[in-house]
Amino acid sequence: MPLPTTRTVAYGDIVLITGKDRRTFIRTVGEGKRFECHLGYINYDDIVGVPYGEQVATQMGHKLFILPPNTDDIVSHLQREGQIIFPKDLGYITLKLGIRPGVRVLEAGTGSGALTLTLALLVGESGHVYTYERRQKMQERAITNIRRLGLLDRVTFHQRDIERGFDERDVNALFLDVREPWDYLPQAREALAGGGFFGAIVPTINQVIELTEALYNGPWYFLEIEELIRRTYKTIPARIRPDDQMIGHTGFLVFARAVAREDRSDPDTAAGDEPDDASDDAS
Amino acid sequence: MPLPTTRTVAYGDIVLITGKDRRTFIRTVGEGKRFECHLGYINYDDIVGVPYGEQVATQMGHKLFILPPNTDDIVSHLQREGQIIFPKDLGYITLKLGIRPGVRVLEAGTGSGALTLTLALLVGESGHVYTYERRQKMQERAITNIRRLGLLDRVTFHQRDIERGFDERDVNALFLDVREPWDYLPQAREALAGGGFFGAIVPTINQVIELTEALYNGPWYFLEIEELIRRTYKTIPARIRPDDQMIGHTGFLVFARAVAREDRSDPDTAAGDEPDDASDDAS
Amino acid sequence: MPLPTTRTVAYGDIVLITGKDRRTFIRTVGEGKRFECHLGYINYDDIVGVPYGEQVATQMGHKLFILPPNTDDIVSHLQREGQIIFPKDLGYITLKLGIRPGVRVLEAGTGSGALTLTLALLVGESGHVYTYERRQKMQERAITNIRRLGLLDRVTFHQRDIERGFDERDVNALFLDVREPWDYLPQAREALAGGGFFGAIVPTINQVIELTEALYNGPWYFLEIEELIRRTYKTIPARIRPDDQMIGHTGFLVFARAVAREDRSDPDTAAGDEPDDASDDAS
Amino acid sequence: MPLPTTRTVAYGDIVLITGKDRRTFIRTVGEGKRFECHLGYINYDDIVGVPYGEQVATQMGHKLFILPPNTDDIVSHLQREGQIIFPKDLGYITLKLGIRPGVRVLEAGTGSGALTLTLALLVGESGHVYTYERRQKMQERAITNIRRLGLLDRVTFHQRDIERGFDERDVNALFLDVREPWDYLPQAREALAGGGFFGAIVPTINQVIELTEALYNGPWYFLEIEELIRRTYKTIPARIRPDDQMIGHTGFLVFARAVAREDRSDPDTAAGDEPDDASDDAS
Repeated sequence: MPLPTTRTVAYGDIVLITGKDRRTFIRTVGEGKRFECHLGYINYDDIVGVPYGEQVATQMGHKLFILPPNTDDIVSHLQREGQIIFPKDLGYITLKLGIRPGVRVLEAGTGSGALTLTLALLVGESGHVYTYERRQKMQERAITNIRRLGLLDRVTFHQRDIERGFDERDVNALFLDVREPWDYLPQAREALAGGGFFGAIVPTINQVIELTEALYNGPWYFLEIEELIRRTYKTIPARIRPDDQMIGHTGFLVFARAVAREDRSDPDTAAGDEPDDASDDAS
Repeated sequence: MPLPTTRTVAYGDIVLITGKDRRTFIRTVGEGKRFECHLGYINYDDIVGVPYGEQVATQMGHKLFILPPNTDDIVSHLQREGQIIFPKDLGYITLKLGIRPGVRVLEAGTGSGALTLTLALLVGESGHVYTYERRQKMQERAITNIRRLGLLDRVTFHQRDIERGFDERDVNALFLDVREPWDYLPQAREALAGGGFFGAIVPTINQVIELTEALYNGPWYFLEIEELIRRTYKTIPARIRPDDQMIGHTGFLVFARAVAREDRSDPDTAAGDEPDDASDDAS
Repeated sequence: MPLPTTRTVAYGDIVLITGKDRRTFIRTVGEGKRFECHLGYINYDDIVGVPYGEQVATQMGHKLFILPPNTDDIVSHLQREGQIIFPKDLGYITLKLGIRPGVRVLEAGTGSGALTLTLALLVGESGHVYTYERRQKMQERAITNIRRLGLLDRVTFHQRDIERGFDERDVNALFLDVREPWDYLPQAREALAGGGFFGAIVPTINQVIELTEALYNGPWYFLEIEELIRRTYKTIPARIRPDDQMIGHTGFLVFARAVAREDRSDPDTAAGDEPDDASDDAS
Repeated sequence: MPLPTTRTVAYGDIVLITGKDRRTFIRTVGEGKRFECHLGYINYDDIVGVPYGEQVATQMGHKLFILPPNTDDIVSHLQREGQIIFPKDLGYITLKLGIRPGVRVLEAGTGSGALTLTLALLVGESGHVYTYERRQKMQERAITNIRRLGLLDRVTFHQRDIERGFDERDVNALFLDVREPWDYLPQAREALAGGGFFGAIVPTINQVIELTEALYNGPWYFLEIEELIRRTYKTIPARIRPDDQMIGHTGFLVFARAVAREDRSDPDTAAGDEPDDASDDAS
């Protein structure tokens, strides 16, 4: 896979290149090609075999670090249209959806593919990602992004509206990043295995209410509404302080678990019962 | 692996069992054994083959859901001593450390193993986790937790002080959850591959300052100090509101990248240069 | 007024008494009476004339500080039923409502009187507070609280439903702390002077939406929805850190300005126009 | 006083003028003069007697609202150099310092006068504000700002370093907005009445530590470190959501109470004792 875990740079590696001004570039090391930026150029042939973390100089003499990128770097440099899911949310979403090697996960819409690639990286070769997108342009963008990472064989792209449902059944997890997720809950429930993990992201509180109502009245359990607020700090040791400006909002995250359909009049099983907030384990 | 991705319950599966009062239990489905709680008992033999997401009744007639657990469930029910890293931080840490199948990652201290198991789940069979813990009792607890998940072969446990360094070299990522992480930066740098991902969590702002100073003056790049604040909401559709009480603080996260040692007088490469906050990519 | 601004303790002063365990008591210094708590008692006669900030010993030898209270102390010790508006919100509300000596301000409902007393303190002798409360018990509680502070002559209490409107006209500011504030906007507009300050506090996002819609469609301008989140820190110098637990939510604050009724079809004046976020002043 | 509480516009009133694009202007209504902006001009003589909250048209036909300003408006439009204390903090500071009519309060440095004017508005004619500023230019700016509000007689301006102490004694409250507040604690203690309210604002966590240490070791009680985080929301009723960008940080607020000097070895009275977090009142 192009994302390197080796000690030295090799052809085909996706690398992060950065100089003293902290401008960062994500590139694939191509034989006979060269990297160019405002600080000059570097022949990729000259950096193959160089240990990661060292500096190489452009022809203009500017030193640049060659580093392996993490998921945050990849996502932040994605060629994109419209909003993407932020790294702070991506990590938590994968945790809540139980993503790990071997898992089959479905998402809609694909968008620029930020979540798609995060999922594809984590499900490994034994898992799979199914992703739906209505807009052709957007899908092509996402396919390009996933291809660069060498992850195409882990992802099945569908280009169509999800109104008439999903092709897959018994997926372990399903995530909706669409404008009106409440419209597709029956379809989502049908695609999910029993006990499967459902998640969605919506930007407005009006959407939170609509989605919560729909989940509350369906075969879903363990409703959760939450958001992650990321606070960054200036790193000058003598004057450490939170940054003046911060991202105030990306989206509300809503999670639930797919359960068997049942008689909703049964007071034992209403999804929205106020929880006792009790958790217990004594194995 | 005991964490199920199948449609129906099988012997050996780790399952989440929960009733109408939302009390949750994590258990392993054992042949000839039974689950007991305040609502009665269930013979595991009776639930093998039952689809996940369905309810089964205890001998007292209380219906319980049988669900596959996610990483959040597992971590939240961990047998533990002392503080663990919270799920909101775990997902983000793995993203920032570039964790995915095939990666070799080192951590200290092991603690109750919350991060250990999260890493072990994600590195897959081709990756590996190396973990250090000084206290024997604590390590035994962690080993028990990892064994239950069937992940022992992905983890190497070291029981000793990290003062004299780590055994491993060229690991892709390294995370410190110790009281004075600044004391172990040379050891960390030695174990990490060039360009490797460094992370740490510290609870106090005094520690943030000490750690930042040490990183600032060493072979580290891209210092980041940040924290994730998780806000949860009540889920009654007609009265949605943030919860009255929230976790105000878990820890500050500090990240950096290991780079080659160099002449620190070179103004081009000081780790702590105020960034231009510019990122750019045109591939 | 009983809230002391003098250097030494006098009869009639409202004082804050506190010992080494940080338990705090708000009391009125009464001639011939005594203060009692778990650490013993103090005769008020013995502390008259003592400078504030000094310690006096109970008959059991425990030293207690005698301090003048601030608005936060008073509000936090209020005899109350139900929720009160928190100090973090009280200060900001008074600022946004333009409260200062000489101002006439109206509020509903009175509740336990936390906002009432904050307003009464600030409007001085030349201003006035009008407050409405439907529940007699609640009103009596508030009257007791205001009387203790010697502020009764600055407050007019109405005990009745506000459905049929308010008695006052041309008040400078008006604040609603009621369950369905959107139902009383015409009455509020009628009581307010042109350009007057409107504010409300509501706990749920459903209420935020209803109130915003109603304001958006009425003679109101400069809609603002906001909340203040207060983060407190542990104060041990060597281990400063945010407190583990915090208040996650008290209420959403909604502010607007009363303007002249007008033809809503006039595109120049719709209250909810997306603002350009431009503010400018060159006097 | 120029800040109007009357129903109609009068000469000398300070007014807020705003048009459909939400650009806002703070002006004083001057006889024979006129207001000008990008939307045209208005003769002040034409708006005297007009009720607040109505619209008046510029000669170009653009309608503008004439409104009374609140403290937030005044502060936000202040002619300023450097950072000012934000309205979210101003309201809370006044509450914690026990500011109300009749109070004598001291502050340093004056800066552009945002806190000065907030205090001057609230202490009324019977209270007083004493303010210290080293830089002449800055002080002149603040004097201009206070003069416009007609509050000069409530404020005493000192232009000098505070190293050699303050002229005043027995002030009820004292606030420091200076770079190294820990250097001036003895002077602050000397100026404050016993039991007086101390407050400070500092931007960095390094300063928080230094200030806390100094307070902890001096004649101070009830140390508090806190911050207020303000979250604003978009106000379109159908799409309400937190604003994407927010102010991530202004300053940490530190509060304490001046108490009598004492033997610090007395374990009963150490300022920094971990509080029991108990508060109690049964009057």
